[in-house]
Amino acid sequence: MIKTENEFKEAIKEIQDQPWYRQPIGFGIARIDKGQLDDTKVLQATYPVANWGENYGSAALFLSCLNKSGSTVDCTTSELVCDINDDFVSFALGYFAPYLDTAIGTKHTNVQVIRELEGKELSNYKAVFVFADDKPLSVEAVYLKLYALSLGKAPLRSLNLDGAFGLLENCAWSGTMPIELEWLRQNEVSLKMTGQYPVLDMVDKFPRFLSHIIPAQNTRVLDTSKVRFGARLADGTTVMPGASYINFNAGTLGAVMVEGRISSSAIVGDGSDIGGGASILGVLSGTDGNPISIGKNTLLGANSTTGIPLGDGCIVDGGVAIFEGTKVSISDENIKKLEQINHGLKLDNIVKAKVLQGAHGVHFRADSQSGKMIAKRSEREVKLNKELH
Amino acid sequence: MIKTENEFKEAIKEIQDQPWYRQPIGFGIARIDKGQLDDTKVLQATYPVANWGENYGSAALFLSCLNKSGSTVDCTTSELVCDINDDFVSFALGYFAPYLDTAIGTKHTNVQVIRELEGKELSNYKAVFVFADDKPLSVEAVYLKLYALSLGKAPLRSLNLDGAFGLLENCAWSGTMPIELEWLRQNEVSLKMTGQYPVLDMVDKFPRFLSHIIPAQNTRVLDTSKVRFGARLADGTTVMPGASYINFNAGTLGAVMVEGRISSSAIVGDGSDIGGGASILGVLSGTDGNPISIGKNTLLGANSTTGIPLGDGCIVDGGVAIFEGTKVSISDENIKKLEQINHGLKLDNIVKAKVLQGAHGVHFRADSQSGKMIAKRSEREVKLNKELH
Amino acid sequence: MIKTENEFKEAIKEIQDQPWYRQPIGFGIARIDKGQLDDTKVLQATYPVANWGENYGSAALFLSCLNKSGSTVDCTTSELVCDINDDFVSFALGYFAPYLDTAIGTKHTNVQVIRELEGKELSNYKAVFVFADDKPLSVEAVYLKLYALSLGKAPLRSLNLDGAFGLLENCAWSGTMPIELEWLRQNEVSLKMTGQYPVLDMVDKFPRFLSHIIPAQNTRVLDTSKVRFGARLADGTTVMPGASYINFNAGTLGAVMVEGRISSSAIVGDGSDIGGGASILGVLSGTDGNPISIGKNTLLGANSTTGIPLGDGCIVDGGVAIFEGTKVSISDENIKKLEQINHGLKLDNIVKAKVLQGAHGVHFRADSQSGKMIAKRSEREVKLNKELH
Repeated sequence: MIKTENEFKEAIKEIQDQPWYRQPIGFGIARIDKGQLDDTKVLQATYPVANWGENYGSAALFLSCLNKSGSTVDCTTSELVCDINDDFVSFALGYFAPYLDTAIGTKHTNVQVIRELEGKELSNYKAVFVFADDKPLSVEAVYLKLYALSLGKAPLRSLNLDGAFGLLENCAWSGTMPIELEWLRQNEVSLKMTGQYPVLDMVDKFPRFLSHIIPAQNTRVLDTSKVRFGARLADGTTVMPGASYINFNAGTLGAVMVEGRISSSAIVGDGSDIGGGASILGVLSGTDGNPISIGKNTLLGANSTTGIPLGDGCIVDGGVAIFEGTKVSISDENIKKLEQINHGLKLDNIVKAKVLQGAHGVHFRADSQSGKMIAKRSEREVKLNKELH
Repeated sequence: MIKTENEFKEAIKEIQDQPWYRQPIGFGIARIDKGQLDDTKVLQATYPVANWGENYGSAALFLSCLNKSGSTVDCTTSELVCDINDDFVSFALGYFAPYLDTAIGTKHTNVQVIRELEGKELSNYKAVFVFADDKPLSVEAVYLKLYALSLGKAPLRSLNLDGAFGLLENCAWSGTMPIELEWLRQNEVSLKMTGQYPVLDMVDKFPRFLSHIIPAQNTRVLDTSKVRFGARLADGTTVMPGASYINFNAGTLGAVMVEGRISSSAIVGDGSDIGGGASILGVLSGTDGNPISIGKNTLLGANSTTGIPLGDGCIVDGGVAIFEGTKVSISDENIKKLEQINHGLKLDNIVKAKVLQGAHGVHFRADSQSGKMIAKRSEREVKLNKELH
Repeated sequence: MIKTENEFKEAIKEIQDQPWYRQPIGFGIARIDKGQLDDTKVLQATYPVANWGENYGSAALFLSCLNKSGSTVDCTTSELVCDINDDFVSFALGYFAPYLDTAIGTKHTNVQVIRELEGKELSNYKAVFVFADDKPLSVEAVYLKLYALSLGKAPLRSLNLDGAFGLLENCAWSGTMPIELEWLRQNEVSLKMTGQYPVLDMVDKFPRFLSHIIPAQNTRVLDTSKVRFGARLADGTTVMPGASYINFNAGTLGAVMVEGRISSSAIVGDGSDIGGGASILGVLSGTDGNPISIGKNTLLGANSTTGIPLGDGCIVDGGVAIFEGTKVSISDENIKKLEQINHGLKLDNIVKAKVLQGAHGVHFRADSQSGKMIAKRSEREVKLNKELH
């Protein structure tokens, strides 16, 4: 049994020096929801603490305790999902002894996790480690990566999620509880005859953001269905309940008002405003694999549609749709203004919108007398990068 | 008491040969939610098994047992809603004896229903039969028809639902439980003072699709509020939570990505994609009674609006609105291409969009230089019907 | 103890004649939800009865009983929030004695409130009075004003809500129960490890309309997330679940079909139709402080965007966006027709849309051959005010 913090640190150092040890990118203890019919199916993995690029001491300790408690610990794979037993819990508590008294609230949360395992049915918990960001091989690894994205511990678009959809089971969800559709089918008559048919909130492979993530103090989500788990909402973001939606691996980098759709892989910068019903296309929906970033302080008007990346201080007028191939007219004066704030940009009087992708200070509007799509210098502020000018 | 399946079949045949008997189109045993203040009001009818065009043996058995147990069974009406009593249950179980052992899961579900009635408060259940597809006369018949539509047992638009809105009570719904608004008013003070005011999910005459229907394994509904009971979602359909909605008597015929609105009476074919915020108008909302069908493999872009039927392989660009009267320009080359794949279609350089209704392979777009609405041959595949060419 | 209704009236008169007494604009007894960590924080105030411009007898009685039971009652402030104690309840019941037998259902609801206080933990209740419509100073006063708006007891836009956002705590909501985000953070590990993490429906400062208000018998709200508390839904209004949303201090004045967004401060008249995805801009979202009123019998087409006030019988075509600065073409014939039904309106062949703000019978459409935005006389009925003609 470890008695002091120094002893703890030495013990960790010793583990980390062992030849079998490899530092994981992410790890955690997950509580598992299993299939009602098929309890070998993992329907959901809930991480009270999702460690990603941090807390390597706890990682070493967990791996060592798994080893000592009889698990096969192979750190050469891309990921590891282990059962845990009473010995694991005892060993880990022994290591964590110096921290038990102060592990409360948001302090020493990995210690709290182990303490909570005491007396629990341990088959409902797994120890999970991701050693390499390869395509995920387990439901537990998919969830750990989605936590890393939603908690802002890994940048959006930075993780390998190939094949994630194939790993996840399509479930009915009653609140935060996933239910196998086949279990409902097998029990439909009895459930309905007795008035015990569950209230179903959705049917999906992914849970919702708010089922796993506590948002920052100044972040608002007016309807839980609007944000999928795996999305990122920076502090100050507000998601309204009208036509908005934020898919997984998409989200905001600062305070953003979201009343429209941020499709999978799309990212929106601080101070921008996604108007009511505005659509930002995703890699799965029309951008030809070109993921869209929207800069800072940019306004997408109500019911506008944006299919190209935009820089800072841009405006897309309400109702306007801009795609890569949209031909855009620009006056000589506005060519001059736009080239001035966008280093290296070369414009003509008519360009495809793709030429303007990522440019700052562009205002897209439809001329209501000629029907022409035009681009001009917006009146929104663009903070210029001095190095470029 | 019936002992073998053969005896069962003979007994059924005997019933079906009786002069009073008439084969119903649909039938089932419904669990009834009654008004909290007025228990003669039926607020909801839940069918553990909704038979439609099938299981005529069970229908005959139920009608005969109702007869024998003292109900007035008149099969000459368009529909019949009967109370059931202990004798009915005993008689029916006698008939079903050969099936009792194997009635489990998804097998012999009508047998399961009867078995579940044993020991229940029978005033909460009704036996319901629809003999003719006339306008419904009872809440129970409306629900049975909505089940038939949502389960895909009756094609969309095929059933008479005239007056259904008038039969259904506008209720507050807490999960799957309907509550009379007047009951809330009468008890508001006490409920609010004691913290027992119910969580209300909606106020409507119709329940939600997921409260009654278990979707196919590969169908997803990311927010239960988005699909009304009476809609049909074919296997492989995904309904996203942004701006989408599928009304009753509307839906999909195959795997469709739904991020927009499918209004009442609108139908969308396999492989089509209803983009974020796209609207398909319904007979109640702007199509002048002309219900809209969208063909296969057709794409409605984000925030587009479609007021005419479309064939296979069409595209409506993001942000574009097409109504019957919209004037559309077509080049000579595209007239040729479109006439070639649409047998009998005759086009001019400028046509009203109504002329193109139901045509295959049409791409509607707004020219961003002239503001003209143009139609051209889309680049999406249209599978031609060989008989026409 | 008061024995008759006459004695009651005399007693009230006596209170109202006292020098310290001042008639409140609104008042009520609120049940309070306090912070789980910080119980001095008021997270929500629920009013079983929200009195506004009415029931002054009960107001006098409550103030007098507070006085007598030891509270400091200062009616010279803009608002007063008082603790209540057993004496208050006894005194008030003494006054209300003549009404106790008939206080049931929707009758004598303030009497019911007092009766319900007997035997309750009184620290969960507050007596609240608003004497002047200044900017609110307490959560309780904000809620009372939102009740007044949502119940239609105070007209939309008529109340001072300055600073309301600053008073309200951003909470997680599980059904109707507000939860401090910090409490979730402090207890996350334990809640998640034990499967007791709450089902969160939203994170916001405001609750939802249906958590506090019972709608009129013929009003429907197909998804509770779509209407914020503080909105007003007149009888006959239907709010569909697609892309719709009604913010606080906004709503309808009659039977309106709502499938789009009614932003904060926007008001829609009887018989109008807000099509699927249609956006009405709010003072916080693009109208430059000019709150938008939409008249009667006006149609906003699917995916249209409206940034100016509109009169009666107008049409904005599906997909069309109209802002103050949009240049609109009008034919000579339509100038004549529009000037005829709009007293004092002077039009040219090309005007900015702002000129048409509030005008009746205007049909805005995009010409699909020229891309021009045009205005013409709509075919929807406008009921002319005879005094103007």
